Amino acid sequence: MMRTRPLKVALLGCGVVGSEVARIMTTHADDLTARIGAPVELAGIAVRRPGRVRAGVPAELITTDATALVKRGDIDVVIEVIGGIEPARTLITTAFEHGASVVSANKALLAEDGAALHAAAEERGADLYYEAAVAGAIPLVRPLRESLAGDTVNRVLGIVNGTTNFILDKMDTSGAGYSEALDEATALGYAEADPTADVEGFDAAAKAAILAGIAFHTRVRLDDVHREGLTEVTAADIASAKRMGCTVKLLAICERAGDGRSVTARVHPAMIPLSHPLASVREAYNAVFVEAEAAGQLMFYGPGAGGAPTASAVLGDLVAACRNRLADTTGPGESAYTRLPVSPMGEVVTRYHISLDVADKPGVLAQVAQVFAEHGVSIDTVRQQGKDGEASLVVVTHRAPDAALSATVETLRQLDTVRGVASIMRVEGE
Amino acid sequence: MMRTRPLKVALLGCGVVGSEVARIMTTHADDLTARIGAPVELAGIAVRRPGRVRAGVPAELITTDATALVKRGDIDVVIEVIGGIEPARTLITTAFEHGASVVSANKALLAEDGAALHAAAEERGADLYYEAAVAGAIPLVRPLRESLAGDTVNRVLGIVNGTTNFILDKMDTSGAGYSEALDEATALGYAEADPTADVEGFDAAAKAAILAGIAFHTRVRLDDVHREGLTEVTAADIASAKRMGCTVKLLAICERAGDGRSVTARVHPAMIPLSHPLASVREAYNAVFVEAEAAGQLMFYGPGAGGAPTASAVLGDLVAACRNRLADTTGPGESAYTRLPVSPMGEVVTRYHISLDVADKPGVLAQVAQVFAEHGVSIDTVRQQGKDGEASLVVVTHRAPDAALSATVETLRQLDTVRGVASIMRVEGE
Repeated sequence: MMRTRPLKVALLGCGVVGSEVARIMTTHADDLTARIGAPVELAGIAVRRPGRVRAGVPAELITTDATALVKRGDIDVVIEVIGGIEPARTLITTAFEHGASVVSANKALLAEDGAALHAAAEERGADLYYEAAVAGAIPLVRPLRESLAGDTVNRVLGIVNGTTNFILDKMDTSGAGYSEALDEATALGYAEADPTADVEGFDAAAKAAILAGIAFHTRVRLDDVHREGLTEVTAADIASAKRMGCTVKLLAICERAGDGRSVTARVHPAMIPLSHPLASVREAYNAVFVEAEAAGQLMFYGPGAGGAPTASAVLGDLVAACRNRLADTTGPGESAYTRLPVSPMGEVVTRYHISLDVADKPGVLAQVAQVFAEHGVSIDTVRQQGKDGEASLVVVTHRAPDAALSATVETLRQLDTVRGVASIMRVEGE
Repeated sequence: MMRTRPLKVALLGCGVVGSEVARIMTTHADDLTARIGAPVELAGIAVRRPGRVRAGVPAELITTDATALVKRGDIDVVIEVIGGIEPARTLITTAFEHGASVVSANKALLAEDGAALHAAAEERGADLYYEAAVAGAIPLVRPLRESLAGDTVNRVLGIVNGTTNFILDKMDTSGAGYSEALDEATALGYAEADPTADVEGFDAAAKAAILAGIAFHTRVRLDDVHREGLTEVTAADIASAKRMGCTVKLLAICERAGDGRSVTARVHPAMIPLSHPLASVREAYNAVFVEAEAAGQLMFYGPGAGGAPTASAVLGDLVAACRNRLADTTGPGESAYTRLPVSPMGEVVTRYHISLDVADKPGVLAQVAQVFAEHGVSIDTVRQQGKDGEASLVVVTHRAPDAALSATVETLRQLDTVRGVASIMRVEGE
């Protein structure tokens, strides 16, 4: 079974993840050889800054010419851990053109251009694997694509961004506001200097697009995902959630829509009951619920980021790509046969928690309730608090379409007795 | 990509799981065709009692001659959901001899004879898949074998038997004794008429053998697994666990031993802290922690049994086996290259909770403590309660080898002042 020629691997990027990949490939070479059925060797490592010291990474393999590396022609697998759209996209495409399979951790690229990359891989009889693009070390892409290949997934709901979970966890446990919690996350290395991709939900939305596509066997792009970040979540929102026996999490939610003929994908802060397993996901951990017709409710939990965990996912894919290469075959490619369209956010049906600042006088509740009724949004509970002519009204609705709720809020804003809409938050996981 | 000839599937067994497999293959035929790349059809269903009505199962496919079915020669994949050692083993071997791949849910057979079955599959270029053999619908075999193929698993710790978890959950929430909780489990269909395989830990031990073999790339058989059931767990044990901020679970634990040159596998009741995620696994659910060098701590959670969940796992494997057949390849086979031996229970190192009935007189504690010290077992805490000349002593130890603890208890039993050893329970998950 052993070949004489080792399988050759090109590594694009040698940051936190790449250097871990290189390290493990060296320290665990014998294990990888035994599991693959042939030795596997690092043929080159492309980096932007060659002068930087990388402990345990063979210096003679470092190059700044990534294009030449993927064009060598003798590379079996290219590992892309650069991130971002370009030059990653061009390099991956070039790798396929030169006969290599690709393992990528690039969620942004996969969410934007997954279909074209899958097509390029298929055309050349190559593999495209990307377990590391979603939820770090947690096996999720492979279980969805392969373990649940005989089942019908109806819903994927999870915490897929560690940075925002860390921030919300801090706000929940310490009562801190958003800025204060973000500062702490930055100081501890959980948030990047520019936290936009995380806190505005772009990172989670890319993962939602990838998960929805695989789960529902259709194509979902980043633009199809409704996205709200957590920058507007206040300490008051968290306190309000607590009074309801809930906590606030930034959730990625992919659902088969009611009639089964479309899907939805969204990322937004939401209240979930403390009894829900996702409520107890602390710090920067990730966890994803998958609901399937036959399997029922499954949960996958683990570290969602970090060098070593992401490297674990990359190396699992590397072993698969190498095995396929030895057997002259490929793993499952893109499955988008259902061609289910992605419905807009307005068609999503869920529950809502709305805080209103209202005038403290008789008849206001009746007036507000009337607006909900006119838009077909049924109220579950109302809590009223008043002092000094001012009052607040907290309304929790039954399930209603997002468009109906938006229209309700629009009308409420026009009422003289409604001084302001303090917050609107969806309620999930019930 | 579509072939004209459909892939042919033989189903052995049509009970709770088999009838769900047959049903889903019929209702979701189009999805399976799209995902496999060719139509897949049920060619025959072997049962023992042909007269029994099975809703939704095509009557014309039913046969009592399982041997003739697997010998037909045109069968691509045999699904074995009969269970037990024979005739399952002979039928699976015959299936391989006649060129079929096999999907099995048979934990007992895999734990007893997995190596021989893998060898038979490899010899014929066929697949042997068995995701359904461990933890029902929860993807665990594939993630361990494929997603973590580039990582080093150090520990697998989980609740892999739903019946016993239901019983312990009842005992914990209601204060009921073992027999009472077992009666309720039986009445609700969570326990079989003869609950031996579950309550004596045979079922969990078979799963532990399978998981340990895959996780550590070695061979572990049922006989290698230390096994203790939960029949001796008392309401007093549960109450005692509660006082320690713990609950009692029947755990399957597979570990790389300290020096990395051996492994251990065991099933026994253990106390785990309430803060541990496994503590909140209720009713008949399963959950498994996997600790790997690079990935860190992962958890997989879901329904561990039942017709539909088990069928989901079987069908995922069916899709994989069919895809491989179309590509004229096979998935990863047995990986046992580490040849790590399985150490006996005596070498397992963990913590212990020991309840002693002792004479209520001065010097007893000193005498007991001396025995622990003589055997090198370090004491963490002691709680002493006395009334009417009788007293109880609850000792919680630091980590110590199981053999040292056993020797300690043996010596304690010989002390005049120790009237009896009320219970010994391991403490895990800290």
